[in-house]
Amino acid sequence: MKYCSACGAPVSRRIPSGDNRHRYVCDSCGTIHYENPRMVVGCLPEWHDKVLLCRRAIEPRYGLWTLPAGFMENGETTAEGALRETLEEAGARVEIVDLYSLINVPDIDQVYLLFRARLLDLDFAPGEESLEVALFDEHDLPWEQLAFRTVRKTLEHYFEDRRRGRFPLHFDDLDRRS
Amino acid sequence: MKYCSACGAPVSRRIPSGDNRHRYVCDSCGTIHYENPRMVVGCLPEWHDKVLLCRRAIEPRYGLWTLPAGFMENGETTAEGALRETLEEAGARVEIVDLYSLINVPDIDQVYLLFRARLLDLDFAPGEESLEVALFDEHDLPWEQLAFRTVRKTLEHYFEDRRRGRFPLHFDDLDRRS
Repeated sequence: MKYCSACGAPVSRRIPSGDNRHRYVCDSCGTIHYENPRMVVGCLPEWHDKVLLCRRAIEPRYGLWTLPAGFMENGETTAEGALRETLEEAGARVEIVDLYSLINVPDIDQVYLLFRARLLDLDFAPGEESLEVALFDEHDLPWEQLAFRTVRKTLEHYFEDRRRGRFPLHFDDLDRRS
Repeated sequence: MKYCSACGAPVSRRIPSGDNRHRYVCDSCGTIHYENPRMVVGCLPEWHDKVLLCRRAIEPRYGLWTLPAGFMENGETTAEGALRETLEEAGARVEIVDLYSLINVPDIDQVYLLFRARLLDLDFAPGEESLEVALFDEHDLPWEQLAFRTVRKTLEHYFEDRRRGRFPLHFDDLDRRS
């Protein structure tokens, strides 16, 4: 951020009075531009003993596999966002079962909210952001070609929970890498 | 948003190519300025049969009672944000028990994440954004002077769950008012 979105003047990075964090503050009109973490919402679609994954057609992690998920949009709920992303990226219709995985990724200012979901039919197809969409069981899943740590963590929980026969909500914080 | 934060030129509201939503797009450098929902994180601090509330010293809802909560900041986890807000607004030290309430408020692009927490001592005191901080049981709680629907909903769940002796995570979507 270099310019104020309210007046177009340059901003500087400083601690506003009464605050204790660095913010972008307009040197001209004084507007404080707060920045906050974003939610990534998505689904873990199940079909019998398989789960649906998408191979990414965009950066970052082009060509690697992920669960259908993306940034939550204004005006929607977390579940609506998860359904939308699943339809957009995988062309897949699902019914949400439950929130399954809440993962903090403070390094990149994201919180993942992934829902366990039941795939309603097999008429899925890659959307514009996917190269391919496919079902995998635990043993043929491309574990070495997963796009994100959050997806790996969620899939690890899932197959372990499958063996136990119960699917509690999992909370994880991904380590700060610094 | 009137000006591009990257280059300072005017922005217009339109659907970028390959997208299906209106965004602020820079007329000069082409930067797309996405806007996403924010998380409000906070605690429901318990002390025996009472809960801790803060009376707001700021707008909106000046003078009304709320749970200690506020916008999650970059670089923190949801629980860290909830602890920070509880310390800032109520001067209160708590130990988090569990995530208790996840409430979508799509009208205002917010998701509330409220944790049940155990108050560690009674040395609480209002921070800069609170007029007073106090403990209430169900019957003396200022039900008619609560600041937010999310807070009312969470407190209603809480006292009902107290009678049942169990505290599952609650999911709510607040109705769109339009």
